[in-house]
Amino acid sequence: MSKNQFVPQIPYGTRDLLLREAKQKRIVEGSLAELFSRWGYDEVVTPTFEYIETLTVGTGSDMHQHVFKFFDNNNRILVLKPDMTTPIARVAATRLKDGPLPLRLFYLTNVFRHEQAQAGRQCEFYQAGVELLGAPGPAADAEVVALAVETMLESGLANFQVSLGQVDFINGLMAESGLTPQCQQQIKCAMVSRDLVGLGEILATSGLTRGAQALLQQIPLLHGQEEMLNKACRLVNNDLSRRALDNLADIRRLLAGYGVDRYVNFDLGIIRDFDYYTGMVLEGYTPGLGFPLCGGGRYDKMLASFGVDNPATGFALGIERVLLAMERQGISVSVPAPEVYIAWAEGRLSPAIEAAQQCRKDGRRTKLALAPAARDKAELLASASGYEELIYIE
Amino acid sequence: MSKNQFVPQIPYGTRDLLLREAKQKRIVEGSLAELFSRWGYDEVVTPTFEYIETLTVGTGSDMHQHVFKFFDNNNRILVLKPDMTTPIARVAATRLKDGPLPLRLFYLTNVFRHEQAQAGRQCEFYQAGVELLGAPGPAADAEVVALAVETMLESGLANFQVSLGQVDFINGLMAESGLTPQCQQQIKCAMVSRDLVGLGEILATSGLTRGAQALLQQIPLLHGQEEMLNKACRLVNNDLSRRALDNLADIRRLLAGYGVDRYVNFDLGIIRDFDYYTGMVLEGYTPGLGFPLCGGGRYDKMLASFGVDNPATGFALGIERVLLAMERQGISVSVPAPEVYIAWAEGRLSPAIEAAQQCRKDGRRTKLALAPAARDKAELLASASGYEELIYIE
Repeated sequence: MSKNQFVPQIPYGTRDLLLREAKQKRIVEGSLAELFSRWGYDEVVTPTFEYIETLTVGTGSDMHQHVFKFFDNNNRILVLKPDMTTPIARVAATRLKDGPLPLRLFYLTNVFRHEQAQAGRQCEFYQAGVELLGAPGPAADAEVVALAVETMLESGLANFQVSLGQVDFINGLMAESGLTPQCQQQIKCAMVSRDLVGLGEILATSGLTRGAQALLQQIPLLHGQEEMLNKACRLVNNDLSRRALDNLADIRRLLAGYGVDRYVNFDLGIIRDFDYYTGMVLEGYTPGLGFPLCGGGRYDKMLASFGVDNPATGFALGIERVLLAMERQGISVSVPAPEVYIAWAEGRLSPAIEAAQQCRKDGRRTKLALAPAARDKAELLASASGYEELIYIE
Repeated sequence: MSKNQFVPQIPYGTRDLLLREAKQKRIVEGSLAELFSRWGYDEVVTPTFEYIETLTVGTGSDMHQHVFKFFDNNNRILVLKPDMTTPIARVAATRLKDGPLPLRLFYLTNVFRHEQAQAGRQCEFYQAGVELLGAPGPAADAEVVALAVETMLESGLANFQVSLGQVDFINGLMAESGLTPQCQQQIKCAMVSRDLVGLGEILATSGLTRGAQALLQQIPLLHGQEEMLNKACRLVNNDLSRRALDNLADIRRLLAGYGVDRYVNFDLGIIRDFDYYTGMVLEGYTPGLGFPLCGGGRYDKMLASFGVDNPATGFALGIERVLLAMERQGISVSVPAPEVYIAWAEGRLSPAIEAAQQCRKDGRRTKLALAPAARDKAELLASASGYEELIYIE
């Protein structure tokens, strides 16, 4: 029986979602699709893979080590999509390029990255997100931030914060510093990984003055409410950084109208790990989860690489991370219980089928036994499985 | 501007689903998830790819030329899943193997096959389906056939037929014929592709008697209602074929109870292109579409290859094929229209935001302008976009 000894494995970094987990995913995704639609967003479904050229133009080449690559029949390289921002840029640049702006698009999809797998960080994972294309300025960013907050509320989370940063705040300081691009990149990497010790070491050998070093060392600590923005403004001497802070203050004012300002704070140390961001960036956090639930921001240059020069902003939310956060916080998605179990005595399958069909017509979730059973056995089974009602046909 | 000359392409055999198409897909999938749940089925979500060994054990090796293959970081071969039957067998053999039987599982997913692409036949496409594991006999098969009918009704189709065959009817005739396995395989291939001329040629050189040739040549023509089963029974001289016909008659009797018998007929020429089927097989057709909308059947041996020896039956439906059939038949999925457009005069964004949030709280689908506009321009835009209502804040 060598054939029977085969033990099937699931690929590294992937998971099966079964029973309650699959139900929760469907419920959360369904309510997010409703939410996005209520905000005027239309769904986009793109292929699971893209030609590598599309990805390279969209995100730059440093993504390559994290993507799954393979060949098509014509020896062109395909990649499993690592996010939806680039595919949506492709769609906007081709099939939607002559439509009215702004374009509001949403997606619910799986994406793929080679990662060290752990709870909440898998090689295949599920994202919900929106892209708002063709709208510059704080009005569009505020809509995206407010929708990120509503997305987490709609998912069922209550205890979370969305932190806003602005990449031009750091860009201004970098330009002001006169550091080499290589040194600037090292500093950004240390900030992305929140490596304060490493950041200190890079700064110590950077040749910067003590004051300039102290300023850059402080960036990851610049978080708080609006008054922090004022404090930060007093630290900087360049227009780019100041305009970045003004931009955040403008966004903050609009968020009050959305009624979501209590969920929002500022964190000038946020540098997203994609190079394509050009303005406001956001990350959502919840206690007990060591990575962001959602992330995004403004990316005004990417669409130009696809031939349609338009500003853009958006965010994506990790579905499994939301489900994990809810589990750790003891919040349950209400999963409907099984309702009716229909069992039958020998020879009574046909009337049992008719009873089952009637229950389904009445909208009840109905399971029909597929073999005859005595009444007492059927009662045991129905109660063990948590059915609300047993219908026994004899 | 060489950077701007990049024209992004979508990979061969894939499509973007935008706006109305994406909405229709979500609406159809949502209602099918509800339907499957009402019949007592639980959703399963498996990874996009599997190790090739899992696929090989499940389906045999002839699938290989049609799958997308790539390597993981440990040089193991992964394949993009070509169907959900094998992944569900893997799940049943591992995480669900100690649970109560029968197991009722459903899925809504994309699957991947290297194909010559055409309308309704893509390299990446979407399937809805169910697997009913651990239940032998006509009661389980009838449930699956009835659910296949209900699935097409729920999708919005009215004009379709589900045809039932039985692989043992042909297997019995093959055994009776005494032909070599190779010749049997050629005959089956000709039948799968409905190649009557090719079938005739194979039979002419098979060495069979005229009578036996005529019988096999007739198989693809054996379709109709119940009386055809009686006619077929008079043609055959072996128990396996006769039991196959009895099995179909039993299933047919149970379908009357489900109230779906008017959608069902018999077609003894149906041989599905997977070798794993062992009993009843089904295909669903609608006028004007040259390929089945759905297909499936009983596969009692596959789970044994995974170490859990259980009977199984199920079917899968092609979502795009259903959408294509509906389009060709002029049936429309009712897609909700946009509702409220909120425009605002210079300086009135904040109260416009508040108005938008109120509309959304009331459950209305609301789009907020992101730049100020004069009232007459806003009125033009709102009516051109088909909004039910314009709210203008000045």
